[in-house]
Amino acid sequence: MEKRDVAVLGVGMTKFGYHPDKTLVDLFAEAFYEAFDESNIELKDIEALYYGNFVGEMTDGSANLSGFIADEIGLRGIPARRYEAACASSSVAFREAYLAVAHGVYDCVVVGGSERLYNAGTAIGTRALATAVDGLHEMTAGLTFPGVFALAARLYSKKYEIPMEELHEKMALVSIKNHKYGAINPKAQFYNKFGDLKVEDVINSKVICSPLTLFDCCPMTDGGSAVIIASADFAEDVIDNPVYILGTGQSGAGGLFRQKEDMVRAIPRKIASEMAYKEAGITPKDVDFVEIHDCFTIAEIIATEAMGFFEYGKGADAVAEGVTSIDGDLPVNPDGGLIGKGHPVGATGTSQIYSVVKQLRGEFKYNPVKDAEIGMTDTLGGDFGTLVNIILGIHRRRG
Amino acid sequence: MEKRDVAVLGVGMTKFGYHPDKTLVDLFAEAFYEAFDESNIELKDIEALYYGNFVGEMTDGSANLSGFIADEIGLRGIPARRYEAACASSSVAFREAYLAVAHGVYDCVVVGGSERLYNAGTAIGTRALATAVDGLHEMTAGLTFPGVFALAARLYSKKYEIPMEELHEKMALVSIKNHKYGAINPKAQFYNKFGDLKVEDVINSKVICSPLTLFDCCPMTDGGSAVIIASADFAEDVIDNPVYILGTGQSGAGGLFRQKEDMVRAIPRKIASEMAYKEAGITPKDVDFVEIHDCFTIAEIIATEAMGFFEYGKGADAVAEGVTSIDGDLPVNPDGGLIGKGHPVGATGTSQIYSVVKQLRGEFKYNPVKDAEIGMTDTLGGDFGTLVNIILGIHRRRG
Repeated sequence: MEKRDVAVLGVGMTKFGYHPDKTLVDLFAEAFYEAFDESNIELKDIEALYYGNFVGEMTDGSANLSGFIADEIGLRGIPARRYEAACASSSVAFREAYLAVAHGVYDCVVVGGSERLYNAGTAIGTRALATAVDGLHEMTAGLTFPGVFALAARLYSKKYEIPMEELHEKMALVSIKNHKYGAINPKAQFYNKFGDLKVEDVINSKVICSPLTLFDCCPMTDGGSAVIIASADFAEDVIDNPVYILGTGQSGAGGLFRQKEDMVRAIPRKIASEMAYKEAGITPKDVDFVEIHDCFTIAEIIATEAMGFFEYGKGADAVAEGVTSIDGDLPVNPDGGLIGKGHPVGATGTSQIYSVVKQLRGEFKYNPVKDAEIGMTDTLGGDFGTLVNIILGIHRRRG
Repeated sequence: MEKRDVAVLGVGMTKFGYHPDKTLVDLFAEAFYEAFDESNIELKDIEALYYGNFVGEMTDGSANLSGFIADEIGLRGIPARRYEAACASSSVAFREAYLAVAHGVYDCVVVGGSERLYNAGTAIGTRALATAVDGLHEMTAGLTFPGVFALAARLYSKKYEIPMEELHEKMALVSIKNHKYGAINPKAQFYNKFGDLKVEDVINSKVICSPLTLFDCCPMTDGGSAVIIASADFAEDVIDNPVYILGTGQSGAGGLFRQKEDMVRAIPRKIASEMAYKEAGITPKDVDFVEIHDCFTIAEIIATEAMGFFEYGKGADAVAEGVTSIDGDLPVNPDGGLIGKGHPVGATGTSQIYSVVKQLRGEFKYNPVKDAEIGMTDTLGGDFGTLVNIILGIHRRRG
């Protein structure tokens, strides 16, 4: 059964940061209205809702939200689903929405997510986030996410024989870059903040979980994001700047004890990205820029390797050589990434789509990637439990 | 784009009840192996996982489970999604799995759910369940689910001018019937228990939320269920007893304050069931039996009306007249329903599918519906936030 081409009609996101006065429903609705305003459609054109949220039960006492959200945005009664895949929640939702439109289940749908972790506070937030590791074998042993990526950094250092001190200096460059880009993105949590960090600032900031320091970590964030997608034919009828979804991939794994040495190679990411490249009919070389899941500095480095941009063990060098900077061969996280822009977990995936679409349309004025035609997203859920990659471009998929 | 017919290959479920020694992953896996054993396929035939769970975060500290589950059952790395729609979690997952196979995304997938609420204990369980009402307007006002359905019973009594005492006696007949059927179902939580309740036993049991008493309520339950589905062509090649998915529907609504007087008419259920009838090309008269979401006795009565089996306000009479008994015109909950069989929230929807498939194959020996050719499920998430109906039959969809 043939697939149809699918395109993005409109994107929206709230400012990321602290929203004490807004519910999960409010945050999604605000992002939705922005996406809807630029989509040039009527409400009745939207046939279904795909919603991503990680821990609304724990932070807001709110589950079962998709029906409430549909009602709130004027779409009462449409089939509405909530996806939970930890930090990849709205990326899983996005891929499902894409598959549904590509395969003719619907012509036009809305997808997005919202989360309130800043509001939850550090204690509840850390506990909530820790539910994304294996609840029986890992969480009960005291593992939280700074621990997962501190382990990853140590494994990386050992496996590729890069002394931890040297590696941390290179990791610091990820933090400096992403904070620099976040500081010029008006929607970012750290807009106008931390735009000129030095290596010493990162290395000497408070230790969170050795070797990771405060500036190695993304913040707790409240926010929402939404994307309206439709069949490419539908899109070309109603807007003049469609961005096409060229390829998608998803994979996953069990807990860390099942991944062992594969951990720093993030095998699920390799599988997911290769699935996306294959569907798009491209290779990593064709990708002009990426928005990557840099929940911690080391995470960005590992990701660029598993996605096929750099050889295993060479991702840290690529950062140091400026390859991943805005003027480099492969700009990584020009929107600031999770570290600079913030990480409202369930909203993160579709906020990456927001940034890629804005870039491809030439509307990302504060940190434009020159002549970008193909952009990609990468979202990690948990400790490699879920991985999603999405490739978007300004032209339809090649035959 | 044309849809394909889809069929069930195999079904499995754990015994419902108390499973202190099993994780959410274990419970799903146990149900999966039973379904897999009767599906006559190889593991590699299964391309994707659709998993339903409501509150694993709160009861087990476990979110992001779908990748862990895929890994555990031997399917590491396949795209795996978790759906959360309160009590309708695995029914939403089932409908998504069906749509994916019908539209050619996959040929063969596994869908199911698991939950541990008995383990959680009454306090955590009640709090977790309450996250399915509106977190801002309802839960904070003290509303939990016995409260929602106590309200529904009072509204029903008032709207249809049936004195509450008379209505409660008819509601008691739902409890008596479903406990009777649960007591003969070996997989039921109340197997061999409460099989011969009298009206007085129900009316005089402990008040939970007036007018609802203990026997008006379903129990807290641990359990898992799983279903393997495939395109009908695929199914007919590998098994000789396929059960076909004839129609599905889903709808929803916002919080109770948005539903007002519609509440006892459950408009989302009317929309969802009509969607399912239309897709199946049948009317309610063609349905031979139903497994309905009887979280409380009044819930079963309301459901039979909104699904079009009885006029509004006449559902309670239908119970009293024996229409919904195993020998009546429309047997309702021959497996015991949530009240007799138990209600492991995320596993409930696909456990209804389990029962319908077993009935249609003639394998539900302990309480068979005579000459059943078409069976239906009904699953409610929250206070009408999500509603899903599924119609299954022993013949392919007509024309």
